[in-house]
Amino acid sequence: MADLASPDAALEHHLVATREARLAEYLDLLRIASISAIPAHAADVRAAAERLATMLRDAGLENVEVCPTGRHPIVYADWLHAEGGPTVVAYGHYDVQPVDPLDEWTSPPFEPLVVGDRVLARGAADDKSNVTILVQTAAALLATRGRLPVNLRFVFEGEEESGSDSLVPWLEANRHRLAGDVAIVSDVGLFEGDRPAITVGLRGIAGVEIHVEGPFQDVHSGVYGGQIENPVNALATIIAALKGPDGRIRVPGFYDDVLPLDEADRAALAGLPFDEEAYRESIGVPALVGEVGYTTLERRGARPTLDVNGIWGGFSGEGGKTIIPARAGAKITCRLVADQDPDRIIEALRTYVERIAPPGVRVEVIGEGGGRPSRTPIDHPATQAAARAIRRIWGEDPLYVREGGSIPFVAEFEHVTGLPIVLLGFAPAAGNFHAPNEWMSLRVFEAGIRTMAAYWDELAGGG
Amino acid sequence: MADLASPDAALEHHLVATREARLAEYLDLLRIASISAIPAHAADVRAAAERLATMLRDAGLENVEVCPTGRHPIVYADWLHAEGGPTVVAYGHYDVQPVDPLDEWTSPPFEPLVVGDRVLARGAADDKSNVTILVQTAAALLATRGRLPVNLRFVFEGEEESGSDSLVPWLEANRHRLAGDVAIVSDVGLFEGDRPAITVGLRGIAGVEIHVEGPFQDVHSGVYGGQIENPVNALATIIAALKGPDGRIRVPGFYDDVLPLDEADRAALAGLPFDEEAYRESIGVPALVGEVGYTTLERRGARPTLDVNGIWGGFSGEGGKTIIPARAGAKITCRLVADQDPDRIIEALRTYVERIAPPGVRVEVIGEGGGRPSRTPIDHPATQAAARAIRRIWGEDPLYVREGGSIPFVAEFEHVTGLPIVLLGFAPAAGNFHAPNEWMSLRVFEAGIRTMAAYWDELAGGG
Repeated sequence: MADLASPDAALEHHLVATREARLAEYLDLLRIASISAIPAHAADVRAAAERLATMLRDAGLENVEVCPTGRHPIVYADWLHAEGGPTVVAYGHYDVQPVDPLDEWTSPPFEPLVVGDRVLARGAADDKSNVTILVQTAAALLATRGRLPVNLRFVFEGEEESGSDSLVPWLEANRHRLAGDVAIVSDVGLFEGDRPAITVGLRGIAGVEIHVEGPFQDVHSGVYGGQIENPVNALATIIAALKGPDGRIRVPGFYDDVLPLDEADRAALAGLPFDEEAYRESIGVPALVGEVGYTTLERRGARPTLDVNGIWGGFSGEGGKTIIPARAGAKITCRLVADQDPDRIIEALRTYVERIAPPGVRVEVIGEGGGRPSRTPIDHPATQAAARAIRRIWGEDPLYVREGGSIPFVAEFEHVTGLPIVLLGFAPAAGNFHAPNEWMSLRVFEAGIRTMAAYWDELAGGG
Repeated sequence: MADLASPDAALEHHLVATREARLAEYLDLLRIASISAIPAHAADVRAAAERLATMLRDAGLENVEVCPTGRHPIVYADWLHAEGGPTVVAYGHYDVQPVDPLDEWTSPPFEPLVVGDRVLARGAADDKSNVTILVQTAAALLATRGRLPVNLRFVFEGEEESGSDSLVPWLEANRHRLAGDVAIVSDVGLFEGDRPAITVGLRGIAGVEIHVEGPFQDVHSGVYGGQIENPVNALATIIAALKGPDGRIRVPGFYDDVLPLDEADRAALAGLPFDEEAYRESIGVPALVGEVGYTTLERRGARPTLDVNGIWGGFSGEGGKTIIPARAGAKITCRLVADQDPDRIIEALRTYVERIAPPGVRVEVIGEGGGRPSRTPIDHPATQAAARAIRRIWGEDPLYVREGGSIPFVAEFEHVTGLPIVLLGFAPAAGNFHAPNEWMSLRVFEAGIRTMAAYWDELAGGG
């Protein structure tokens, strides 16, 4: 990354002068353990929403509201005085992933630690960096110019890491707050090597839990072994049957709606600067493996997956316990690509698992919901305005990438509003999202604010 | 079970008079959480050994010693004044299984609860019932006759539920204490329907842990999904490959040393009174399943097994966590039959698992030791003396059964001393050993004392 450019001198002066205070504001938000998947953290999620509302009010946003939902609040705010200018709906999320395994963190996940250029904390990257960048960009523009170049509507979600159940009902009930010209989804980041990127494809997601039950309770593996099906063995058999050694998912119908990669798609992915060996080393695996016939970047952005996120059953403590466990279970998620539908995938999984379940155990497949995949057009004027903003601040062209992750908001928002969506954010490529020791680069954080300011200028036709 | 007979009127009078005090002694032993597999319980195991030593001294046994070993003590005691009489080495164990899942217990596992005829507690059956029966039999005979009909040596182990690592070194160092004519192993029980039984076959055991490692730490299943092997999926593939849908274990060489069942073996097992449907219902499984071509009792007593005792990996809490876990693992034990050797089985497992491990993960197989299977002769005079004792007290012939469980002591003791071994004990067939809500019948407990007294008389040639 070259030395930072800036949209204008007054803004730059302000950003430099407020840097310490802005860092403190960001760290305060990181201190709140807003883990949306864990019900015991509901009050923390609420506290983060309130904190964000305060940040928005302090920034000069209007109509700030912590909107109740069926579960965690959505924070709304706007500034609508750019008469004749475009209206942008900007999305981020203030909830975070759980932190376990806690013992692999080098510092407590909710006591943000600044080490050189890095801030270490759960949510430092995903997604409190982008949320804070959006709010602080608006604050700096309002402080230095007294106005924003565009009309802005912020929608900050608190359930992105746990299914976004409340999102669609809220979107449908708040269409009047979603009127605009473009939606910016800021829950993405840089490409490997910290190259600025615009995300043009996102995978969807579909989740299930598989529960296997055998005897009423754990029983002696000597007395009963060989005479009854073992729920863990049965679960392993089921999971093993979901995927072949060629990396193909064996669930009938799974690939029915997958759009094949055409030559242009493959060429675009092949053209990205990607050091496969450095990537492998950064994860620490002996080899990259995946579906036969596809490159690593194709497997990431354009092909669906099936992964066990967690498995349990029987005795996992120190020492031995010679039992046949009463039950076992696994959490499984599939990442989906256009045009797969999460509900159809869950049904296909259920049908297949019920068919292949071994005799002697009871097997249940519980659908955990999901989100649709999405693709966004590179040649849309709003995408191209983002590209110009990146060029101005970073001194280089953005990469157009298809990401492996999922943001249920994107497909749902597209579905409810029909607005074009630009995915732009600043999380580091190797930032340990969803993992121990998540981190954000402060230098990139500062670049993010300048890029967002330039983007609003570009969208307004200035710049 | 018919009304109890008794070896003699004075003994019967004494047993009735001391019944409350003897129950209190048994419950005191059950209150000690002597879980040998969990290092944090080492002091409890030691306390149980000391308690048992006190019981032995109170009973009138001599040379009572709590012998230190590399891990948990072995309690030794003897009474050697039956001049010209046979010498019996009697074995039991005072350690117990872990108690989880704790929430499935209807009462706390170390607060023994007497409900009607039942005592509910961890260890109530396996094996503190039999240990207490042995000690109280000696106490009652010494109290009423001033002597025992046989010379007795007690060896009570504290590691039976966690590998018996210290047993062989102790046996080898204490050959002078093992001189005798027959060994009685009292870590077994009644047959289904609470029919008295003599166990003539025991399975051995061999254990491994399989550890699978992928990325350095848990990673985002969207960002990395489809590009790296998932350790849980890999582990499931490995486990699924260990056993076929026909119930046969697929590890090459696994069956090499298994003695086939001959027609007499099959006829003996087929002759046992066994209600398969009641057995299935008592476990709560939808169907009994196992190796094709064998009956349930053959699968239990005469065929080897492979069971996962526990599995772990990734996120198993409430809600979701969309990760590829860094690692996964499983504890696996095989029950062995004559003439399988635990070390050879562990090596066969290791070789096979390493060969079938999918690429992209690191797989390690850790041997956890084991014990040899054993068979004992029905026509041995010591077996037939036990049969006569059972006939006197229970009014019916004993069943000769091959049990599915494993007692490492049996094969090791046979190996070190060459003594014939009789397996006789009184745990109820459905007593939930190794499971929540373990229980013992007080009526059977009392029958056990009378049976053991009659057995010593029979061995002495009296009765």
